[in-house]
Amino acid sequence: MSREPGCVFCKIVAVEIPASVVFENESILTLLDIGPLSEGHLLVIPRKHYSKLSDLPPSESAQLGAVLPRMARALLEVTHAEGFNVLLNEGRTAGQLVPHVHFHIIPRSPRDNLGYRWHAGTYSSGRAEEVAAAYQEALSRQTQ
Amino acid sequence: MSREPGCVFCKIVAVEIPASVVFENESILTLLDIGPLSEGHLLVIPRKHYSKLSDLPPSESAQLGAVLPRMARALLEVTHAEGFNVLLNEGRTAGQLVPHVHFHIIPRSPRDNLGYRWHAGTYSSGRAEEVAAAYQEALSRQTQ
Repeated sequence: MSREPGCVFCKIVAVEIPASVVFENESILTLLDIGPLSEGHLLVIPRKHYSKLSDLPPSESAQLGAVLPRMARALLEVTHAEGFNVLLNEGRTAGQLVPHVHFHIIPRSPRDNLGYRWHAGTYSSGRAEEVAAAYQEALSRQTQ
Repeated sequence: MSREPGCVFCKIVAVEIPASVVFENESILTLLDIGPLSEGHLLVIPRKHYSKLSDLPPSESAQLGAVLPRMARALLEVTHAEGFNVLLNEGRTAGQLVPHVHFHIIPRSPRDNLGYRWHAGTYSSGRAEEVAAAYQEALSRQTQ
């Protein structure tokens, strides 16, 4: 099992430091975030150390994806939340503090002052087509 | 293929309305969000209609998870962003506007005024253990 020295999530996986683990299988651990944005805020992490989602093999990210609905149903039941956000931050600029891939699941209730800052823009004429073409080209060069 | 009458994402999947689709496989479609929070903002959706992540069969959510790293790498390449947020909203309270499961991938750059409103709290003594126990109990009753 690949781990990173000094990584707090790797230490939790190795049961070297305590955590409120609520679920585990062969590849995934789910635990309470100890600095919750709201009660019942969960973290879903791979056992193996990968610092970034963009580094994750598809088999590992499929395992993460596979458990999310189950975690979401448990969260709705336990917290009685009206909804939730699933959030993953990659990079310091995006708010990633622990460099071990993790999905947050954040219970939401009315007027909780949480949520994503939503400042929607638009594409100028023809720009969406250019960006889409750049994506298609980049994706066609990827091997998986 | 299950679809929902009137659902804008189902219409995009059926090629009944135009969209900037950048990737598709047998179960997933990735397209540009036409109201981007930043240039290159992606939506990753299942072809089949499910309104909520918590309703999604694990096989479907695994497929969504599997493609996320690949989409993330393309996004970093195309947009030259320093990072990104992956975001899924379930429920109106959580900001879900289109009731067809979708992950946002939002390119981030310094001082872009985006990101999640982060107001971290704490658990009072013993409360985390109570919440974790409730999760363990709820998850032990789930069949998958």
